[in-house]
Amino acid sequence: MTIRVGIYGYGNLGRGVECAVRRAPDMTLAGVFTRRDPAQVSILSPDVPVYEAGRAPAMEGDIDVMILCGGSATDLPVQTPQMAAHFHVVDSFDTHARIPEHFAAVDKAAKAAGRLAVISAGWDPGLFSLNRAYGQAILPDGADYTFWGPGVSQGHSDAIRRIPGVADARQYTVPVEAAVAAVKAGENPQLTTRDKHTRVCYVAAEEGADLAAIETAIKTMPNYFDQYDTTVHFVSLEELHRDHSALPHGGQVIRSGVTGWNGEEHHVISYSLSLSSNPQFTASVLVACARAAWRMARDGQTGCRTMLDIPPALLCPQDPDTLRRTLL
Amino acid sequence: MTIRVGIYGYGNLGRGVECAVRRAPDMTLAGVFTRRDPAQVSILSPDVPVYEAGRAPAMEGDIDVMILCGGSATDLPVQTPQMAAHFHVVDSFDTHARIPEHFAAVDKAAKAAGRLAVISAGWDPGLFSLNRAYGQAILPDGADYTFWGPGVSQGHSDAIRRIPGVADARQYTVPVEAAVAAVKAGENPQLTTRDKHTRVCYVAAEEGADLAAIETAIKTMPNYFDQYDTTVHFVSLEELHRDHSALPHGGQVIRSGVTGWNGEEHHVISYSLSLSSNPQFTASVLVACARAAWRMARDGQTGCRTMLDIPPALLCPQDPDTLRRTLL
Repeated sequence: MTIRVGIYGYGNLGRGVECAVRRAPDMTLAGVFTRRDPAQVSILSPDVPVYEAGRAPAMEGDIDVMILCGGSATDLPVQTPQMAAHFHVVDSFDTHARIPEHFAAVDKAAKAAGRLAVISAGWDPGLFSLNRAYGQAILPDGADYTFWGPGVSQGHSDAIRRIPGVADARQYTVPVEAAVAAVKAGENPQLTTRDKHTRVCYVAAEEGADLAAIETAIKTMPNYFDQYDTTVHFVSLEELHRDHSALPHGGQVIRSGVTGWNGEEHHVISYSLSLSSNPQFTASVLVACARAAWRMARDGQTGCRTMLDIPPALLCPQDPDTLRRTLL
Repeated sequence: MTIRVGIYGYGNLGRGVECAVRRAPDMTLAGVFTRRDPAQVSILSPDVPVYEAGRAPAMEGDIDVMILCGGSATDLPVQTPQMAAHFHVVDSFDTHARIPEHFAAVDKAAKAAGRLAVISAGWDPGLFSLNRAYGQAILPDGADYTFWGPGVSQGHSDAIRRIPGVADARQYTVPVEAAVAAVKAGENPQLTTRDKHTRVCYVAAEEGADLAAIETAIKTMPNYFDQYDTTVHFVSLEELHRDHSALPHGGQVIRSGVTGWNGEEHHVISYSLSLSSNPQFTASVLVACARAAWRMARDGQTGCRTMLDIPPALLCPQDPDTLRRTLL
């Protein structure tokens, strides 16, 4: 049985899903949906149709799982419930504070239509959430630490681009190695925002721009930069595009906790990701979740789920006997 | 609703379960079962009864989940199916090659009795298995690497103790740092057994024993040591007991894989454990799995499961809304 996947939105993430479906032995890409003119959208797969987004509802019989590849700010809150009326769906909704409200909306739509939805898949939220859950379940007396990077923060890069005089910019979030080392050594440090990460910015300024003013505007920007030690490097537009066009990211979730009658034993669980392309990796998680969504639906489940609700075996193409024989 | 837990077998692992249940807000320890004379078994919990193991079946109404804390060689293959006829059960069966056969026996017994069983919980098998599953599901084109230690291998320590002239011994398995670093750097190295781990032995010899003969017997022991670079340190019995009585362990599971249309992106997922007490940590995993077993049973499920089948949220004491709000 082949799972027929649709991609709704074709940017970096959608292209990543296209690549990941190609590596899935049990899936086929049935169509790509775009709000642009389909004739102008060139995809990687030779024989897959590109449709106008509005065509999607008419294709209920052709697609099993629709993977939503839009943004969390305005696309997914509308699109995921909409598509859940027609397909099993997976999204990467990552506005942490609004997940309960998104969950409720998608759950309602999916239940009404008898569909299965997985939201907030990816690595944070997603794999990092899983590791926080496993860590807290196993070591209830302990502390969680999450470090991000080294990697590109697109939100922070965008914030710099909005400063007058900035032509383009790229911001790297960098964990403070000494803080990571202290956590891994089980020292349970109390860490401020500034202790955990630094921010490194590469900025191409417009000709004649006031560089000192740009640097001050960056370093004092509330929430984005003012609570961090920030370094600003001015580079040419050519250098920026040549050396800083990739989207690497990653990070670590660490649980440090005690066991024993009097807390005399100490354990550290560390989960770490090093990703050369954030959207490609996130897409690979979405595709594994599409498999799980399809299987949960096949078993008669409907409504909304997150990765916290997915039995790990459902993410794997192998059957349960093979998994037990080869992975346990 | 409080989950009433029983402990079947009271060694290091059973004591660890006792400690972990004390930290679980939703569980209570209902009894400890031993094959020894209960009057001779002193446990940590002040008001918990110790029973003769044979009493267990008569206590169906008093215990929800029995956690089996015996050994994999001869205890669990008999005890887990036996106890699954009376209780929901959790064990840490870790003879990897025999897991399918143990699964089948426990599944049959649990289904016949309408009980839910979780076998092979712990960290390897267990958390390491989960990470192999997540890694392969997300990065199907890649390689798995598992490193163990630094930590005490009880099986290798026992093997040394059986050599004539050895009074006592402790063996540490140590991962080769250069191999770990190459894997984490994404180099996808081909590693032999010798490349991955070294073995370090602390041996207290009997008076007048032939130390050179002991060292040769260790280093040439088939499977246990002959494929490794092994170091032997002779120490006094006092020093051995003073400095090498703890049971630290740990290790790492690393998935290194590619994505992208032509495999042009590269990602590394690393999961690492650093444990001051192997049995205490394993026990903490068993207790989280007992919670999941009880909940799966409450939802009407019966038969055998492994951690690959458990939705992570079921391991956590918090309700699903709280988990989504705090962990995602």
